[in-house]
Amino acid sequence: MGTPMAAHLTALLPTLVWNRTAARAEQHAAAHGTQAATLAEVAQADFILTCLPTSAEVDSVIEQLLPDLKSGSVWIDCTSGHPDAARRQAALLETRGVTFLDAPVSGGPLGAKAGKLSVMVGGDGAVLEQVRPLLETFGGTVLRVGGVGSGFAVKAINNTLMGLHLLSLAEGLAVLKLQGVDLQPALDILNASSGRSFSSEAKFTQHVFNRKFAANFALGLLAKDAGIALENVQAVKGSAPLLAHTAMLLRAAQHTVGSEIDHTAAVQMVEAWNDVELS
Amino acid sequence: MGTPMAAHLTALLPTLVWNRTAARAEQHAAAHGTQAATLAEVAQADFILTCLPTSAEVDSVIEQLLPDLKSGSVWIDCTSGHPDAARRQAALLETRGVTFLDAPVSGGPLGAKAGKLSVMVGGDGAVLEQVRPLLETFGGTVLRVGGVGSGFAVKAINNTLMGLHLLSLAEGLAVLKLQGVDLQPALDILNASSGRSFSSEAKFTQHVFNRKFAANFALGLLAKDAGIALENVQAVKGSAPLLAHTAMLLRAAQHTVGSEIDHTAAVQMVEAWNDVELS
Amino acid sequence: MGTPMAAHLTALLPTLVWNRTAARAEQHAAAHGTQAATLAEVAQADFILTCLPTSAEVDSVIEQLLPDLKSGSVWIDCTSGHPDAARRQAALLETRGVTFLDAPVSGGPLGAKAGKLSVMVGGDGAVLEQVRPLLETFGGTVLRVGGVGSGFAVKAINNTLMGLHLLSLAEGLAVLKLQGVDLQPALDILNASSGRSFSSEAKFTQHVFNRKFAANFALGLLAKDAGIALENVQAVKGSAPLLAHTAMLLRAAQHTVGSEIDHTAAVQMVEAWNDVELS
Amino acid sequence: MGTPMAAHLTALLPTLVWNRTAARAEQHAAAHGTQAATLAEVAQADFILTCLPTSAEVDSVIEQLLPDLKSGSVWIDCTSGHPDAARRQAALLETRGVTFLDAPVSGGPLGAKAGKLSVMVGGDGAVLEQVRPLLETFGGTVLRVGGVGSGFAVKAINNTLMGLHLLSLAEGLAVLKLQGVDLQPALDILNASSGRSFSSEAKFTQHVFNRKFAANFALGLLAKDAGIALENVQAVKGSAPLLAHTAMLLRAAQHTVGSEIDHTAAVQMVEAWNDVELS
Repeated sequence: MGTPMAAHLTALLPTLVWNRTAARAEQHAAAHGTQAATLAEVAQADFILTCLPTSAEVDSVIEQLLPDLKSGSVWIDCTSGHPDAARRQAALLETRGVTFLDAPVSGGPLGAKAGKLSVMVGGDGAVLEQVRPLLETFGGTVLRVGGVGSGFAVKAINNTLMGLHLLSLAEGLAVLKLQGVDLQPALDILNASSGRSFSSEAKFTQHVFNRKFAANFALGLLAKDAGIALENVQAVKGSAPLLAHTAMLLRAAQHTVGSEIDHTAAVQMVEAWNDVELS
Repeated sequence: MGTPMAAHLTALLPTLVWNRTAARAEQHAAAHGTQAATLAEVAQADFILTCLPTSAEVDSVIEQLLPDLKSGSVWIDCTSGHPDAARRQAALLETRGVTFLDAPVSGGPLGAKAGKLSVMVGGDGAVLEQVRPLLETFGGTVLRVGGVGSGFAVKAINNTLMGLHLLSLAEGLAVLKLQGVDLQPALDILNASSGRSFSSEAKFTQHVFNRKFAANFALGLLAKDAGIALENVQAVKGSAPLLAHTAMLLRAAQHTVGSEIDHTAAVQMVEAWNDVELS
Repeated sequence: MGTPMAAHLTALLPTLVWNRTAARAEQHAAAHGTQAATLAEVAQADFILTCLPTSAEVDSVIEQLLPDLKSGSVWIDCTSGHPDAARRQAALLETRGVTFLDAPVSGGPLGAKAGKLSVMVGGDGAVLEQVRPLLETFGGTVLRVGGVGSGFAVKAINNTLMGLHLLSLAEGLAVLKLQGVDLQPALDILNASSGRSFSSEAKFTQHVFNRKFAANFALGLLAKDAGIALENVQAVKGSAPLLAHTAMLLRAAQHTVGSEIDHTAAVQMVEAWNDVELS
Repeated sequence: MGTPMAAHLTALLPTLVWNRTAARAEQHAAAHGTQAATLAEVAQADFILTCLPTSAEVDSVIEQLLPDLKSGSVWIDCTSGHPDAARRQAALLETRGVTFLDAPVSGGPLGAKAGKLSVMVGGDGAVLEQVRPLLETFGGTVLRVGGVGSGFAVKAINNTLMGLHLLSLAEGLAVLKLQGVDLQPALDILNASSGRSFSSEAKFTQHVFNRKFAANFALGLLAKDAGIALENVQAVKGSAPLLAHTAMLLRAAQHTVGSEIDHTAAVQMVEAWNDVELS
């Protein structure tokens, strides 16, 4: 995700890129007109953007940059992170005069390339307005949803719903196939009806029926997001049986289908339960 | 639903209308250029369309018309019916030379008025092609999904998914509100993200946040549809935990919130569970 | 189950035995003092007992015996059958003057051998009192729970609860093991505490921890029973999310672990979901 | 719970008692031969036992006693606490040379009075053997289940299972009643069959059917325990759909039926879902 996002930033500002593998940063610079940099150089930027697998990796980068950060700069974390981590990270950065915004994105590699990502922002509203032009280089919709951590909270719910829509449609299609219904027109008519979802529109014809499972978002990361959503349910002592159910099923899929495999392959668990293939 | 659908038919053919309350048929005739008729007159039509609350009411109408039906005619049932009923009804009508198509619709009163309903058809493909112009007077998308009963099977899954999307988003928004997130931007960004669904796009801002609950589809009917979906799961000895969970929750909502109330009011059960109001 | 049950009957009355495999009936006669018989001979008995895998097999036997049955006789079906089948079978037998009792049993092969089965009876109370001595040859507790079909209804719920207790304890033990807790003392203390169940007391040490899975009750039959329970939920338009959840999980286990395998092996599905072995 | 437990201790050792309300400690002393004491006096004891609503209250007591604790003493916490709290508390006490054992109990007020509680112990095995005589003054079964926190982990699972057994049996009985089955014999035969549990044996006849709901364990505390179990599931990234489902339902019950009410009243939620009363 970070690759096209950083490329879009060059439309607005000179952009430094850092990657654990220096060669990747140099490739990015050559391809997109950014500039490969060291962590120490990056630390001097006015705006720092991170987009990493989990909040743990962000913690680690913050720890490395912290001594060198410039007061008055803004750290924008586009990771699908944890609201608790956001609050902790914001407090830590504040000790150096740095403002933290959680700004996770939705839209996948295609949305990132097209600069049409959705950006759900938690944190100070005035600071968001200051960095909005920057976020809009890669974002089609940029909305503040609340204080620090709120962006991560919404992202976790969003992804859990996406996973729930995927698994439940897999259940429905499995049952329909066992009843002798033709899957492709059934899906097509669902997509023109009230049961449709982003998952029904963008996942089954493209990634499941053709058995390619190549949507390019790892099942383990989706299970992680649903785990964050469930921790949020727990934190407010809420009752969310369908979200909890989803978190448990995604983890079961992660352990039985695979963690690194594309998340659309989670339907294989539902297929096994029903002894049927969705194709 | 039947009112606008019958009105659209007049664009193609002279249209007889019958209603248990004769005055309603006469009103329809006056308003839409149809012709109020007795059941005996209706029985003589080339194409008979029914759109009733459940298959039980269709059984009752078939029983009354059966002696007078014309061989070679086509009975198109747009009810959200039961696949088993469809097969029984088709067999019964066949004894009189009448072909049965199950053709439930999705799109609600607005879709019906606009002539843009989705029509999911089960039954003979050649007969469908014969009546397609008729279905397209009110249908924007008309697709055959399999043999007799398949349309009902798909409709039951479609509505169960819609109910699942509604309840699970209510859970998510309840938790987010308890976390201090602002609901309207959270919903808006979800609707631009991968967690979106027809339920997220068409139900919350319009019917829940304003506490009107006026989408005009009864909770009891939605619970009935989810019950049909679960019977289909049972019929094929399938495993569909999320669909089964949904059917149970919708019935719990039906008993605690009300059967006649609009289906969007099912979120009130989730609100009670979390001691929060989605507004 | 039928083998020891029929053996116990000889303590009270001369007992005819029939089996699809005639040699098995002759073995039973030699071992237990019963008398191998043809279906026609069996049809002449005052009391007919059946104990078959499902109601479908009972239907088939009733159909074969029906012409030869004696008016005034009593048919006692100890199958884990379906309440709807019971009502249909009772009505059919009544046309020949035969009274039907559904009398499923719990207690397994050990309980059957010891003559200590629980017998849950649906049907006429006076007829039950007439045949009670007969049921008490193999039953330790014999209770009438309601009209025809009630015995089967209770049995379906009983077995679903047993399956639920099994699966949920497997979940709990999987999580405890992942936390580093010692499973055997954890189970032992649970069995002395408020979380205990028949499943916790009789299944894990004996059949799971030693990886023998030899409780001698097929997973497919347990899944079938939970399916009956769910049909009962549906029949009364009830809301039973935990029972529905269980029915779905048992079917998933049946399809992924095996149908003929012992029901305690259903825990292997939970183990796979958690990447841990309960031993 | 603490009242009878402290009374039993006097059989072995002189026993100091402290309560936030001093008069209650004095009443205990007068009734049971213990000695009312200040926190400072209690801090000097060789063995300190706590039995409080949650780990938060234990944290608070530890904080108050910490400066005065004797090196070499043992702190035994019988609260239904949180494994994470146990590890934190053990580490804190260790700084003062005090060993911590988590030793939650099961058996309720009756078990406590009879000195027949089950005690599930986490922590050092040698220390447990040292204090075993003390635990056996009120415990019928005392087992070490693992390191610090393991006792709490097992207790959380135990109570979640108990709640699950309660709710699922309520579902089953609701459906049976709607089918016309007689509840009392249905429960009696279940209690002699494989679907039985401690919940089926000890809760329905005694507390539900008579509408007294007086088992004396608050629904809010049970929901809290199931929440701890779910946090444990999360901590090990486990998949436990039935336990998660239970935690969500208990919280829904807590919010709709009441937090202070007896936990057996949770069945009222299931009754409302099915429009039936279990009596």
